[in-house]
Amino acid sequence: MAINGYGTIGKRVADAVSMQDDMEVIGVAKRSPTFEAFMAMEKGYPFYAPAESIHGLESAGIKVEGTVEEMLERADIVVDATSKSPYLDVYDKFGIKAIWQGGEKHEIAGTSFSSIANYEEAWGKDRVRVVSCNTTGLIRTLYPLHKEIGIDNVLAVMVRRAADPGDSKKGPINAIEPVLKVPSHHGPDVQSVMPYLNIQTTAVKVPTTIMHMHSVVVKLKKEIDEDSVLDIWSKYPRIILLSSANGIKSTAQIMEMARGFGRPYSDLYEIAVWKDGVHVVGDTLYYYQAIHQESDVIPENIDAIRSMTEMMPKEESMEKTDKALGIRKTL
Amino acid sequence: MAINGYGTIGKRVADAVSMQDDMEVIGVAKRSPTFEAFMAMEKGYPFYAPAESIHGLESAGIKVEGTVEEMLERADIVVDATSKSPYLDVYDKFGIKAIWQGGEKHEIAGTSFSSIANYEEAWGKDRVRVVSCNTTGLIRTLYPLHKEIGIDNVLAVMVRRAADPGDSKKGPINAIEPVLKVPSHHGPDVQSVMPYLNIQTTAVKVPTTIMHMHSVVVKLKKEIDEDSVLDIWSKYPRIILLSSANGIKSTAQIMEMARGFGRPYSDLYEIAVWKDGVHVVGDTLYYYQAIHQESDVIPENIDAIRSMTEMMPKEESMEKTDKALGIRKTL
Amino acid sequence: MAINGYGTIGKRVADAVSMQDDMEVIGVAKRSPTFEAFMAMEKGYPFYAPAESIHGLESAGIKVEGTVEEMLERADIVVDATSKSPYLDVYDKFGIKAIWQGGEKHEIAGTSFSSIANYEEAWGKDRVRVVSCNTTGLIRTLYPLHKEIGIDNVLAVMVRRAADPGDSKKGPINAIEPVLKVPSHHGPDVQSVMPYLNIQTTAVKVPTTIMHMHSVVVKLKKEIDEDSVLDIWSKYPRIILLSSANGIKSTAQIMEMARGFGRPYSDLYEIAVWKDGVHVVGDTLYYYQAIHQESDVIPENIDAIRSMTEMMPKEESMEKTDKALGIRKTL
Amino acid sequence: MAINGYGTIGKRVADAVSMQDDMEVIGVAKRSPTFEAFMAMEKGYPFYAPAESIHGLESAGIKVEGTVEEMLERADIVVDATSKSPYLDVYDKFGIKAIWQGGEKHEIAGTSFSSIANYEEAWGKDRVRVVSCNTTGLIRTLYPLHKEIGIDNVLAVMVRRAADPGDSKKGPINAIEPVLKVPSHHGPDVQSVMPYLNIQTTAVKVPTTIMHMHSVVVKLKKEIDEDSVLDIWSKYPRIILLSSANGIKSTAQIMEMARGFGRPYSDLYEIAVWKDGVHVVGDTLYYYQAIHQESDVIPENIDAIRSMTEMMPKEESMEKTDKALGIRKTL
Repeated sequence: MAINGYGTIGKRVADAVSMQDDMEVIGVAKRSPTFEAFMAMEKGYPFYAPAESIHGLESAGIKVEGTVEEMLERADIVVDATSKSPYLDVYDKFGIKAIWQGGEKHEIAGTSFSSIANYEEAWGKDRVRVVSCNTTGLIRTLYPLHKEIGIDNVLAVMVRRAADPGDSKKGPINAIEPVLKVPSHHGPDVQSVMPYLNIQTTAVKVPTTIMHMHSVVVKLKKEIDEDSVLDIWSKYPRIILLSSANGIKSTAQIMEMARGFGRPYSDLYEIAVWKDGVHVVGDTLYYYQAIHQESDVIPENIDAIRSMTEMMPKEESMEKTDKALGIRKTL
Repeated sequence: MAINGYGTIGKRVADAVSMQDDMEVIGVAKRSPTFEAFMAMEKGYPFYAPAESIHGLESAGIKVEGTVEEMLERADIVVDATSKSPYLDVYDKFGIKAIWQGGEKHEIAGTSFSSIANYEEAWGKDRVRVVSCNTTGLIRTLYPLHKEIGIDNVLAVMVRRAADPGDSKKGPINAIEPVLKVPSHHGPDVQSVMPYLNIQTTAVKVPTTIMHMHSVVVKLKKEIDEDSVLDIWSKYPRIILLSSANGIKSTAQIMEMARGFGRPYSDLYEIAVWKDGVHVVGDTLYYYQAIHQESDVIPENIDAIRSMTEMMPKEESMEKTDKALGIRKTL
Repeated sequence: MAINGYGTIGKRVADAVSMQDDMEVIGVAKRSPTFEAFMAMEKGYPFYAPAESIHGLESAGIKVEGTVEEMLERADIVVDATSKSPYLDVYDKFGIKAIWQGGEKHEIAGTSFSSIANYEEAWGKDRVRVVSCNTTGLIRTLYPLHKEIGIDNVLAVMVRRAADPGDSKKGPINAIEPVLKVPSHHGPDVQSVMPYLNIQTTAVKVPTTIMHMHSVVVKLKKEIDEDSVLDIWSKYPRIILLSSANGIKSTAQIMEMARGFGRPYSDLYEIAVWKDGVHVVGDTLYYYQAIHQESDVIPENIDAIRSMTEMMPKEESMEKTDKALGIRKTL
Repeated sequence: MAINGYGTIGKRVADAVSMQDDMEVIGVAKRSPTFEAFMAMEKGYPFYAPAESIHGLESAGIKVEGTVEEMLERADIVVDATSKSPYLDVYDKFGIKAIWQGGEKHEIAGTSFSSIANYEEAWGKDRVRVVSCNTTGLIRTLYPLHKEIGIDNVLAVMVRRAADPGDSKKGPINAIEPVLKVPSHHGPDVQSVMPYLNIQTTAVKVPTTIMHMHSVVVKLKKEIDEDSVLDIWSKYPRIILLSSANGIKSTAQIMEMARGFGRPYSDLYEIAVWKDGVHVVGDTLYYYQAIHQESDVIPENIDAIRSMTEMMPKEESMEKTDKALGIRKTL
């Protein structure tokens, strides 16, 4: 497989693919000679680039194997992690399967994907869009509730990090900015995977870089206690249950914990849910979850490759991915 | 009237009282010779202090008129803006009426107060607690909806500033911290004034100093459109309706606008609601409001004085306060 | 006089001019119907705009008196506070005197201005550039040292706020960014006013909005103790001497103090120097100063008007300005 | 060897020791059942605790091997990474060699240590203090200049991160705080290792968590150009030379680059110097360096163990450490 765009998502997909024993990175493509380009080269990923960028990259010391088009010729599937991807027609021309990221619209692929909810829907497809970090986070915890209990409706308020850790341009430095379009696009985006879910979302942007936080309120179809909810989540993959009793009081400690896991980029693939932040009042469930915006979609990208290329069924793929990436269920 | 505690709230109450023509600051009390003590002296407020602090204050150059007790003897009502006030028994002993702030529990006063919702309840009372900035903010926009339309239930997610602008100790610098006790105390606190309101709240703390932001979801008793909601709010006091069309996209621009109003401390006494953030889906109303945590309770403190001392009825007091403070309804 | 550009600097110059008894705002010009445009209208400043913006402004509810050119016709001097001003030729055409801000290069005016150091140099000139906030801050404290003691050389490290309080776009949120061009442009900029000064500067950008901080190291021409330095500064205008003993430990408390001064926009026109941060080792003086980037150049703009229009000599103008603006020397 | 205190420094020393082939972690000690305690257990480090903390730890699910004293009995050297260590007498009683961290005073050990500058001074010693992150950073780049060129004097202004990434309590959120004691303690601290160096330092605290930044000005004993300086640094260990041409414009991109190195905790052991931030004016050298405050002292802790236990000479130890930790000289 090939990776077009080697930034926040692309570099992580490359490493995650390398950690699987049933797929291989045949190349990564990137435009500019940033530190990330040098790291790609050092990791041994064959480096490709748009024709017009090759000269600049080589002058800067990057060894370029060929054009993006040459990379596409050599692969059977491409993960597109460019921003505002202009490659739709190119992929079509090369007849290569393509995975898009959540920054693109549903319509680009026709199939929006989140492993736990609709792995089968991507089976054999040529184009699939892995939904965004926030949408992936919502589906990870909501799908089990839908499946095991039944959901009447959901309200999620997303408190979003304003920039990624490696970004020093974007602000705000000291403000909160609401997403005035209400309900925000996140609700419909969840419905692109779970069309049967009644969900509304609002969002505000805050001056932090490390994680999003969701305050989620779910009206369930039956009354159930906190322990039963935690029990359900503990049986589903890619949710990590944490407790403030272990000093985890904010997103700062969650990501500090993740650094101890020893993963590439100190990532947290799991959605983090505070056990002591889960409360049920009547038939209404309240919980907080924290989303590592840079990495939670990485396992989904791996599964999407397997589903689109008809390699193995859902449970098998998810387990294989999670084992390879060292995904956990608790601290 | 006297003010015990001359910090964030105390200094604002002092100035606001000075701006009324029917009440007078006979003294302010403070413990330590901070810049705020010097400003109090410069503004001509007679300065009092706990006996044990007088020496230290005078050495630092503050002229002290007497002890807190002496101040209490000279006043008929005291606004307590100390933190974790230890003065309950002292006020009782001096037979002085006392107003507490929202940091104290309802029980200290027995009456929690928010002008628009229960001015009459404080009438002639000896002890009243003005509810906190967040609670005041919720009541300002919810009471009109309750009164004019009827509310089935409310969910408010409060995205809270972690420290005030003048505070350089508290963090976080780069994290989001949830209030794990769900529903948070803000719901019951609103009910201390509006016991008939079905409200649940959750809260997260974020790295900003200037304002809180609320994402509020109200299930109304009947369907109504956005314009009608805005129309209701425009008729109630202490709500300012803003639009992103005027460049107001975040709390940064709101407070920048407030600096242009020329008020003491560049305060925003009004609750700021984005007109273009108001949306109705069926019978459910979504809106964002921003709360200037340092000052929104100031008008309520003035009204509380009038109600407790039986000076005038609600509408008259609120109008008088708002005129004196220059409170607005629009940009 | 007229003000072209009604943003951070323009709106402050307008208010400061209004506070003088020997000059008058005949108009302000602005492009877009932001909240600041509405505030200008409310304050009664005749509102002008580039011809192509008038329709948009009026649709938004702003009453426009005429074009920028019409405003220029009616004034004898214009303060240009636009960003990347394109008006040089226009002012020439109208034969109007013009004051530029520090964002423009020295060459646009030929005369760079800082009241205390070279008021006389602007006398009768047609074009003058008031130097930037950082440069103004350096000159305010260095000129007295130069004059009273003599300076061998200066090193200043400027720790710069990354965005203004009303700006929610610019970051970084969590990073420090050096200005890699060393020495930074600030040194030469000081020399545009004090060409005889041997000064080098470096700069880093940090995630704060409220003030710049300078760590300044001055090799003096003779040994002198801390008290004598403070004594000198206390005799020069627009320097405010503060102490951590009054709880002023960071820029947070400085700006909180300024809010208590009751000025427009809660500004601090003075350069703030920590008395207990002043240290002398041999012939080397170390001090920290904090700069309110939004407002410290405002008094200089007023003085520049007087010098260019030959209204009165330096000391008289500076005193008049300072009295009108309520400028202080201590807490 | 044993590690007393398993927080920011302790956990890193444990992993770094495990990565060497000539030393072994026989135990780590910690008081409270935080996530870090669980990670220690998971990594297989025998877990010890103060006697009074054992019950609490075991109730929380941590398997405790014994008391701190029992750990000390089993080791020949202990790295103390507690805060405000109360263990001086205990180590004496057990006759165990002890390494202290830079938070302690020089006097606790009598020998302050930085590998490149005074490895030999720690040879066979019973107590050594590895200097702080900032001091280590200064010595790494200054010692080569001293050795290869000669230094007349140094001024360093340290722009310090206010809290670590895993800390959500400390601020400021939006302020700059100067260290008013000037020169700051950092200068004398450098001199505890390089007593012959003429250095003055000042410091300010800023709202960031990821790195410190130093603006350093060195008066050299002879004139030399930028390339020669870079050439010297490239020959000395634990300095990484970076360029803004690779998109590294701030500490954000440096730490993002480090995440790609795949080290424990995404650490950057090297001192990062911008090649394009190095400038020479006459005999004066200006440069910026960025310090990963959590990890730059880790290699020094390893070397200190080897020197104190007389395992091998300086160059051999430093090379061995650097190879084991994967320390780099360039991107």
